Amino acid sequence: MSKPSKGTAVLAYSGGLDTSCILVWLQEQGYEVIAFMANVGQEEDFEAARKKALKLGAKKMYIADCKTEFVENFIWPAVQANARYEDRYPLGTALARPCIARNMVETARKESCTTIAHGATGKGNDQIRFELSCYALNPEIRVVAPWRNPEFVKNFPGRGELLDYAAARNIPVSASKKNPWSMDYNLMHISYEGGMLENPANKPLPDMYRTTCDPEKAPDTPVYLTIEFKRGVPVKVTNVDDGHVEDSPLALFTYLNKVAGAHGVGRIDIVENRFIGMKSRGVYETPAGTVLLAAHEDLELLTMDREVRKVKQALSVQFCTQVYNGMWYSPECEYVRHCIDKSQENVQGKVNVKLYKGNVYITGRESDYSLYNEELVSMDVTGNYEPHDAEGFIKINAVRLKEHKRLKKAFQ
Amino acid sequence: MSKPSKGTAVLAYSGGLDTSCILVWLQEQGYEVIAFMANVGQEEDFEAARKKALKLGAKKMYIADCKTEFVENFIWPAVQANARYEDRYPLGTALARPCIARNMVETARKESCTTIAHGATGKGNDQIRFELSCYALNPEIRVVAPWRNPEFVKNFPGRGELLDYAAARNIPVSASKKNPWSMDYNLMHISYEGGMLENPANKPLPDMYRTTCDPEKAPDTPVYLTIEFKRGVPVKVTNVDDGHVEDSPLALFTYLNKVAGAHGVGRIDIVENRFIGMKSRGVYETPAGTVLLAAHEDLELLTMDREVRKVKQALSVQFCTQVYNGMWYSPECEYVRHCIDKSQENVQGKVNVKLYKGNVYITGRESDYSLYNEELVSMDVTGNYEPHDAEGFIKINAVRLKEHKRLKKAFQ
Amino acid sequence: MSKPSKGTAVLAYSGGLDTSCILVWLQEQGYEVIAFMANVGQEEDFEAARKKALKLGAKKMYIADCKTEFVENFIWPAVQANARYEDRYPLGTALARPCIARNMVETARKESCTTIAHGATGKGNDQIRFELSCYALNPEIRVVAPWRNPEFVKNFPGRGELLDYAAARNIPVSASKKNPWSMDYNLMHISYEGGMLENPANKPLPDMYRTTCDPEKAPDTPVYLTIEFKRGVPVKVTNVDDGHVEDSPLALFTYLNKVAGAHGVGRIDIVENRFIGMKSRGVYETPAGTVLLAAHEDLELLTMDREVRKVKQALSVQFCTQVYNGMWYSPECEYVRHCIDKSQENVQGKVNVKLYKGNVYITGRESDYSLYNEELVSMDVTGNYEPHDAEGFIKINAVRLKEHKRLKKAFQ
Amino acid sequence: MSKPSKGTAVLAYSGGLDTSCILVWLQEQGYEVIAFMANVGQEEDFEAARKKALKLGAKKMYIADCKTEFVENFIWPAVQANARYEDRYPLGTALARPCIARNMVETARKESCTTIAHGATGKGNDQIRFELSCYALNPEIRVVAPWRNPEFVKNFPGRGELLDYAAARNIPVSASKKNPWSMDYNLMHISYEGGMLENPANKPLPDMYRTTCDPEKAPDTPVYLTIEFKRGVPVKVTNVDDGHVEDSPLALFTYLNKVAGAHGVGRIDIVENRFIGMKSRGVYETPAGTVLLAAHEDLELLTMDREVRKVKQALSVQFCTQVYNGMWYSPECEYVRHCIDKSQENVQGKVNVKLYKGNVYITGRESDYSLYNEELVSMDVTGNYEPHDAEGFIKINAVRLKEHKRLKKAFQ
Repeated sequence: MSKPSKGTAVLAYSGGLDTSCILVWLQEQGYEVIAFMANVGQEEDFEAARKKALKLGAKKMYIADCKTEFVENFIWPAVQANARYEDRYPLGTALARPCIARNMVETARKESCTTIAHGATGKGNDQIRFELSCYALNPEIRVVAPWRNPEFVKNFPGRGELLDYAAARNIPVSASKKNPWSMDYNLMHISYEGGMLENPANKPLPDMYRTTCDPEKAPDTPVYLTIEFKRGVPVKVTNVDDGHVEDSPLALFTYLNKVAGAHGVGRIDIVENRFIGMKSRGVYETPAGTVLLAAHEDLELLTMDREVRKVKQALSVQFCTQVYNGMWYSPECEYVRHCIDKSQENVQGKVNVKLYKGNVYITGRESDYSLYNEELVSMDVTGNYEPHDAEGFIKINAVRLKEHKRLKKAFQ
Repeated sequence: MSKPSKGTAVLAYSGGLDTSCILVWLQEQGYEVIAFMANVGQEEDFEAARKKALKLGAKKMYIADCKTEFVENFIWPAVQANARYEDRYPLGTALARPCIARNMVETARKESCTTIAHGATGKGNDQIRFELSCYALNPEIRVVAPWRNPEFVKNFPGRGELLDYAAARNIPVSASKKNPWSMDYNLMHISYEGGMLENPANKPLPDMYRTTCDPEKAPDTPVYLTIEFKRGVPVKVTNVDDGHVEDSPLALFTYLNKVAGAHGVGRIDIVENRFIGMKSRGVYETPAGTVLLAAHEDLELLTMDREVRKVKQALSVQFCTQVYNGMWYSPECEYVRHCIDKSQENVQGKVNVKLYKGNVYITGRESDYSLYNEELVSMDVTGNYEPHDAEGFIKINAVRLKEHKRLKKAFQ
Repeated sequence: MSKPSKGTAVLAYSGGLDTSCILVWLQEQGYEVIAFMANVGQEEDFEAARKKALKLGAKKMYIADCKTEFVENFIWPAVQANARYEDRYPLGTALARPCIARNMVETARKESCTTIAHGATGKGNDQIRFELSCYALNPEIRVVAPWRNPEFVKNFPGRGELLDYAAARNIPVSASKKNPWSMDYNLMHISYEGGMLENPANKPLPDMYRTTCDPEKAPDTPVYLTIEFKRGVPVKVTNVDDGHVEDSPLALFTYLNKVAGAHGVGRIDIVENRFIGMKSRGVYETPAGTVLLAAHEDLELLTMDREVRKVKQALSVQFCTQVYNGMWYSPECEYVRHCIDKSQENVQGKVNVKLYKGNVYITGRESDYSLYNEELVSMDVTGNYEPHDAEGFIKINAVRLKEHKRLKKAFQ
Repeated sequence: MSKPSKGTAVLAYSGGLDTSCILVWLQEQGYEVIAFMANVGQEEDFEAARKKALKLGAKKMYIADCKTEFVENFIWPAVQANARYEDRYPLGTALARPCIARNMVETARKESCTTIAHGATGKGNDQIRFELSCYALNPEIRVVAPWRNPEFVKNFPGRGELLDYAAARNIPVSASKKNPWSMDYNLMHISYEGGMLENPANKPLPDMYRTTCDPEKAPDTPVYLTIEFKRGVPVKVTNVDDGHVEDSPLALFTYLNKVAGAHGVGRIDIVENRFIGMKSRGVYETPAGTVLLAAHEDLELLTMDREVRKVKQALSVQFCTQVYNGMWYSPECEYVRHCIDKSQENVQGKVNVKLYKGNVYITGRESDYSLYNEELVSMDVTGNYEPHDAEGFIKINAVRLKEHKRLKKAFQ
């Protein structure tokens, strides 16, 4: 290597073609490379990846088990928030990025280096989420993003040139055919985008999905679960049919993924707005997340005051945009997370759900913190106020409307 | 009748026990009564109701066909708004009330009277929606609501006393057993509440539902539809399987109700917050509405700018509260409807949907007004901006985050 | 007294004609009356009022010194919130009501009674603020509001009838002429409304004001103050000219009232929207409050992140409406106060102000928690990011705008 | 010139040192330069600037009179919006940029060129406002910004090097000493920032201000004006003292600037948040704008429904951020302007103001579209509703509060 040494870089390594080539290319640029892989629940042969990285010249390989941290510190706040970006996308990728970035920044600190490299492109959200998290956690971090480097981009205009480079550098390439889409896999979801999915009128291929059953092939018999929440996060899942119970965060989330996936729950196909200003099309499968959002939302309506909920929902909309845009570690997201968490003090109780061929039905709910007052609502019981009070309520609410009409008539 | 004459009252008449008793009671109070019934798409023997009203002493009976008005002037704006109160309830009853009230106020005007009577209770939303609409349309209106009259309430503490009164006054009573819940039926939905549903942990009985099939008994074969929108409202529905087409508002909505109902689409079971300040539990079936909201929301993401959508969604949240609270004819709801309609100028195109056992899946969308730019989003094409521009974008976005960290470190 | 005993009522007593008549009238209705007066800083001969109440038959007279509680628990949160209802009214009366109500409910508890009476009318905000606070603090409370009692209103259609009643019952009446407006006086402000002010085109009379000098007669020499804040509340006020210092809540607020009042600061004349749905016209003088809001707002901009501030300002708008509408003890106001307080953690520092003939000028500010970075902002220093990064930032922000234009051109 | 020709560039030319050097430097880079100056009301010797530009090699010089366009199309919408960024800054510079940019893009179109150059730095808002406007109006535009060009910045690290360059190229330099701050001057305001103002604790020098009198030196006699609005914009200004009347947009705005400036109205000294993520300190004088915002806001309260106003104020907050961030020509700002304009239909009437030593006092208002109902509000008149209706209103509003308390007590 003729280039002068540039010190050590921690590379977000996936084991795939792109980051394997980048691992080698970084060394050619003068970096010593430490490979980093986060285990956020994806199906992956981590040991094979470790061997490959070391073989390709990585000085070290870190494999960080982030699963529990991901569930407790990132997915749980999203459940509390009923988080759906643009009312639909449950933010699977967006929630994992700051978790991964935090572990990488921590790794860089341990290794006393401040350079971090990744293989994300210049068009997506991930570069932003990743880098904003790094800069927020350590303003000294320097990021190397080859796919934004004009020279690198010029040398590798397509997959062919990467394959040529791999062949020339003895970089092993998987024999399996590349999927006509790209994928991001973690405990919360798998996302599919790009390739044939870029035309938003195209239907996804049926064999694309990895964690959810096709609803049409899901069992004809529904499954019934009871989910128990404390402070807005699930603490226990019970399978009503077979009595199976899970009550630790990672285990219950993993179990829910399995059960909900088996019943075809959690597929969506949407167009969304990237932070970068363009629209993109994504297909997602989010089995456990979909069940938990439905159940949590239901419990919130039972236990949270109407006006508190209005304030909280507006905060949640902002939370979603912040997370989607990579702002997890921003002052505003820290602030909003605090406020949302505060709203969850009484969101405690049990929700019964039925999963059937792709759908989640709420079949009942109960809570010691319920603000639902069966006596008050009953058409057969009076109490708390007299019926004729409602007349006053209506007449006072009509004052403004009558004034408005008075003015309209005057100018008809 | 010993009471002095109080003039003419227009009574919202349903043909049921309550309003039949009220029809007679009003006459005993000194009113001449004109019965009014709105046809908003409910299954009903209108002619039997007419006969009954006249037999019970009504001076006249009006049956107003409000179906087309209801779809075009009330449901369509709700579709444009993606209206779901508290993120879930598609507002079926709340949308019908101002439509019915408008027709009743019009009837009162024709009959030169200013008294309107109804059989709604003092606990619900309907009294509010109904009366606020009346007062807004004609501030001179006087409302008689026997269920808020202390004397009336004292005389009729339960159903038994009503039945006694009916027997004494020769008011015919339906032989069929009363359902253990109450129901509101219109083109947009049927709502079920009260009775056994008052305990939010109770599951609804399977035979309660009237317009939707149990998803577990729905066809094993999905149906595929294409829905075409102009200015945010549906203008054409095509059944892709059999080529059936509907392209007028009422006909396409009715057709969608039938097809979606047959596939079990549109059931929800929720707790919601009434305007009156209490929580209530409602079960709803909204077949066509559920399909249209999903399709419209999808098309909006394709054709509406990200930031316009944010503004519009916040307006929609307000629209939902306004409509739920009976404020359709308020200045703020008129204003918000105008603004939402303005946002729909480019919401034009086609959405493909698949209905299957209770679920609506979006399977594709296309529009001449699409803001989705396949070239721009493609990972294989550069253009519009250079990849390294994204670096500047990220670094500038990080300025605030770094300052925040700087301060935090200083006070650690 | 012929009426049967109705137990004990705590009456909000002012010593004026209305509540003196009500004190007697309540006894005639069968109540034993305990008079209650809150000292929230108004100029008042409390001992004379005590004597009068007892003379008129009150069983006891409570005079609660609420001044410190008012400042610390009610005015301080409003300062943190930059609270101005409808962007203008600093909420002087609305902040005092829940403080007074809390003390009255406490008094009722001590006296083991649950009836509370007041002399507010059926048109204003005060009845609402007062009663909602009472009901929220003790749902068992029963309120007696003679001015909403149809019989009482009929008997006393005007001031003349009250004077007749006073004469007949030996109720002493102040010899001084009644002002052609009504007034509410507390530490935060004096409000003037009603009477000649009901025509919003009328100018207030110059001699109406009680705590602020006419700006045209204020000193020709400005005064300079430094105000120090911790967690968003003032902790010290220094008169830069004479070195006078105040550093306890009540003392510094009282001092600021004196100084700002002397310089004519804090007068406004506005039309506002009552909760009851009508518009009203109010004239207010809020000397200390006006200075503190200006200073606090300024410090917030120095120490609070831009996006946190956006979130917090939206919460503040809601806080203002809640407080104005009497919802201080509501779940939503408790929640919002918590969130606003959380935002104030770093709002610490000093603000220099100049008061001159009715105006407050900010003349400088400094803080250890400043997020203002003089080096970063300097046109002469580079750092943190490179100038060409801004180009990328702009180009990425333009992506959406260009797509919008592309579509517009296509349909021109 | 040795560089290859790069075609024609339109340069935003001010006549000052920076843009004069840039004019010459661009030619050295291979551009033919057309100089462009917008007259947005600043005090300037336009003809001297023209001569200088042509002398320095500009092929042509355009001086666009944008004054009327600026007032009618940019300032008026801001008045309708009550626009104050971060509740304080009336957006003087931010409003002028899109107006100037539109004229420049128009000039480039006339000259069939697509390159636009400016002398704004990489730290400020103006580069963003200017370029986003250009890109939105013509996506083909290419921007040359020397102060973001690394080579240019390296060659001219400070004012000294610019002066050397000017000397070497015979660029005339003004003999007058440079102010220790920078300035932006237009009809709406003058802004001062940078230099000695970069320390937010420093007081501005008294002789810095150009259009407003020091309040301490302003006349001892106030001036009284009546301002008449139609659809939320001023249509007539009357000086009540001398009867002077102005009723065309530019003339009345210019007149108000003169009168309000003479009375010291419109100075503020604030810290604000730039789009670029840093805080900056600005001192502004906005005489006419300050008066109009106060008067318009007052009239709005008289004529606009309470709830419409809430919706509109939230839109205005967004409008302010959009304008500040250079998004005038964005789809969301176009949308929000439409909605705000719609809200102004009834904002018509007259407001009386008094200007005195830096302050604007509202002294009365009247409107045929007033929603203020003197009869309704009067404490001496009943009507529209009965006093006891208020009791029902309060009791229903208390339902939620009592439920909240019930739950709290259960868990105490």
